[in-house]
Amino acid sequence: MARNARAQAMMTDRGIDALLLTTEPEVRYFTGYLTRFWESPARPWFLVVPASGDPVAVIPTIGAALMARSWITDIRTWRSPDYDDDGVGLLADTLRELGCAKVATPMGLETHLRMPLDDFDMLQGAIGSKIISDGGIIPALRMIKSEAEVATIQIACDVANRAFARVPEIAGVGVPLSTVFRKFQMLCLDEGADFVPYLAGGAGIGGYDDVISPASNAPLQDGDILMLDTGLVVDGYFCDFDRNFTVGSVTDTSQAAHAKLIDAVDAAMAIAKPGATAAQLFHAMDDIVTGGAGGSDTGRLGHGLGMQLTEWPSLIPADQTVLAEGMVLTLEPGIDVGAGKMLVHEENIVVTDTGARFLSAPYTRDMVVL
Amino acid sequence: MARNARAQAMMTDRGIDALLLTTEPEVRYFTGYLTRFWESPARPWFLVVPASGDPVAVIPTIGAALMARSWITDIRTWRSPDYDDDGVGLLADTLRELGCAKVATPMGLETHLRMPLDDFDMLQGAIGSKIISDGGIIPALRMIKSEAEVATIQIACDVANRAFARVPEIAGVGVPLSTVFRKFQMLCLDEGADFVPYLAGGAGIGGYDDVISPASNAPLQDGDILMLDTGLVVDGYFCDFDRNFTVGSVTDTSQAAHAKLIDAVDAAMAIAKPGATAAQLFHAMDDIVTGGAGGSDTGRLGHGLGMQLTEWPSLIPADQTVLAEGMVLTLEPGIDVGAGKMLVHEENIVVTDTGARFLSAPYTRDMVVL
Repeated sequence: MARNARAQAMMTDRGIDALLLTTEPEVRYFTGYLTRFWESPARPWFLVVPASGDPVAVIPTIGAALMARSWITDIRTWRSPDYDDDGVGLLADTLRELGCAKVATPMGLETHLRMPLDDFDMLQGAIGSKIISDGGIIPALRMIKSEAEVATIQIACDVANRAFARVPEIAGVGVPLSTVFRKFQMLCLDEGADFVPYLAGGAGIGGYDDVISPASNAPLQDGDILMLDTGLVVDGYFCDFDRNFTVGSVTDTSQAAHAKLIDAVDAAMAIAKPGATAAQLFHAMDDIVTGGAGGSDTGRLGHGLGMQLTEWPSLIPADQTVLAEGMVLTLEPGIDVGAGKMLVHEENIVVTDTGARFLSAPYTRDMVVL
Repeated sequence: MARNARAQAMMTDRGIDALLLTTEPEVRYFTGYLTRFWESPARPWFLVVPASGDPVAVIPTIGAALMARSWITDIRTWRSPDYDDDGVGLLADTLRELGCAKVATPMGLETHLRMPLDDFDMLQGAIGSKIISDGGIIPALRMIKSEAEVATIQIACDVANRAFARVPEIAGVGVPLSTVFRKFQMLCLDEGADFVPYLAGGAGIGGYDDVISPASNAPLQDGDILMLDTGLVVDGYFCDFDRNFTVGSVTDTSQAAHAKLIDAVDAAMAIAKPGATAAQLFHAMDDIVTGGAGGSDTGRLGHGLGMQLTEWPSLIPADQTVLAEGMVLTLEPGIDVGAGKMLVHEENIVVTDTGARFLSAPYTRDMVVL
């Protein structure tokens, strides 16, 4: 309800009559509505946050019982899917009844509209006006986490810490990377993850050339560096950090490259506090990993984190977001180790009133040897 | 490449110069580009399928190496996120260079546009024309699975079959439902799932009142019926089916209600073949579970299945989709067992040239007793 009030103050400033929200994190942010049912793209879900009064849910009947357990009392439903009108008429009626002429929805970077475009056009026709951009209200609100949100992300990080500590149980010379991926997800669940929406990684001698490909069936070999990067979820909140391991023997060069990544994280931590900018964190890390070249093709050295694996801001030179207490960020420096290979390291932090503290248990300068 | 040619034939029929695709399954359908990196909403990805010639990928640099392993050769990249222009200029240039004036994107039911609306407006301004609906080209193509796609879905179903067979190892009186959910996901991974994007379920005496809520910590009790419904993924393809179990003692009434669900599936299977309609499958099941009342609040009794947990068509009275060889469907009848509770059963099938066959191993009329 505090979130509703904060949103309404910003809406009043901008002359917006209602926010129309259609995605999972947006709806959940205002209602607490938590379900994995969003995995099905079949049905649209709408939440209307009016400039005054409580939000109104306009949702498929199948979700009514669960929504009724939230603090939302005005829940309007239709039996979806309906090929004649999949909720658009009901939503338009709701907006008219609430007297909302100027309706806004998130339109900026890292947002999308989760409803068919044909229906969006129909909706604008039905309410007789073009829906406009929220002007960044949703990112501004969601970037600052409450104590409860930070505590939940801490639990997710703790789960991942414990899972990473058990990697020696599942990985070593001869184990296919695909098996490591499968078993690492099992470790995450065993340690308390509700589910594991994201796992990426790589393995190769001295480094890896890619951090977004699916795992191959190639067995790990002596001298490989294995990286696992997980986004697991507890109570609807993500952690997102990685660990590098060496398989069997390791060179001093590799450990030195890894230590540089730890130094980069420490450099960012040293300046992370309210008033610093996202860009400053970028430069603190970039100075160490590239000597200040301005980054690499991955495009950023960290990002926000919360209900989604990645959120605003981005740690890039162009991001002038001013850090504030309650922001949860990843610090994710990467380093080019030659021959087209790289190492990437990532930690999770929260900005406090005086500085920042780690949510992930900060990793050692030397990679753990498997 | 065959998919590209089929799309182009349909585009020519409709006078469309290019399809603009922005979502994971759409891009993967034409390229094979498979990564869990889509979990991050930070970056947009674009694929242009022109009316003649090969598709062009316009994507963040971080994805270039993986895309280069696909059959796509024209890959244009920018370093995303870019706050001045997050790929829109590059995409507009590409469309102009290809001479594409009439650009279409999926706009119908069960679709959405995965890019910021502000950027979509900017793109339409840059190319000087409004982007139109694909008129259902993408659903029409994706509804018919190739033999390779069916074989992959079969593997996913086989994994789930094996995991369901092991439920007695993890569930019984006193085990919290949340623990069952966690351990069932571990079983799915152990049996070969790449990941488990979806798990739903419920438990209660005689039935459950909800199939979309997160699992509670309440322990299973004697007399509960436990339902687990999984959408696990192998090589980018889903299965989606459920199993009901009884915990300890079970009444004849419950087993009879369950048997009716099996009868409903069998009734749909008996008529499932090329030429029958989605609506006919609905009615075959609805006649048995409600006596022909026209369904329930869940809204449908099955749906398509493939790269997504749920796809077109919907098994509802209004869906006149004519079944064709290669369609993969779920049959998902539910039954009201009184006191606000229900049972839901689900199997996966593929339509063949002469009928249909089960991809999930069809369940017994009597629920397995835990």
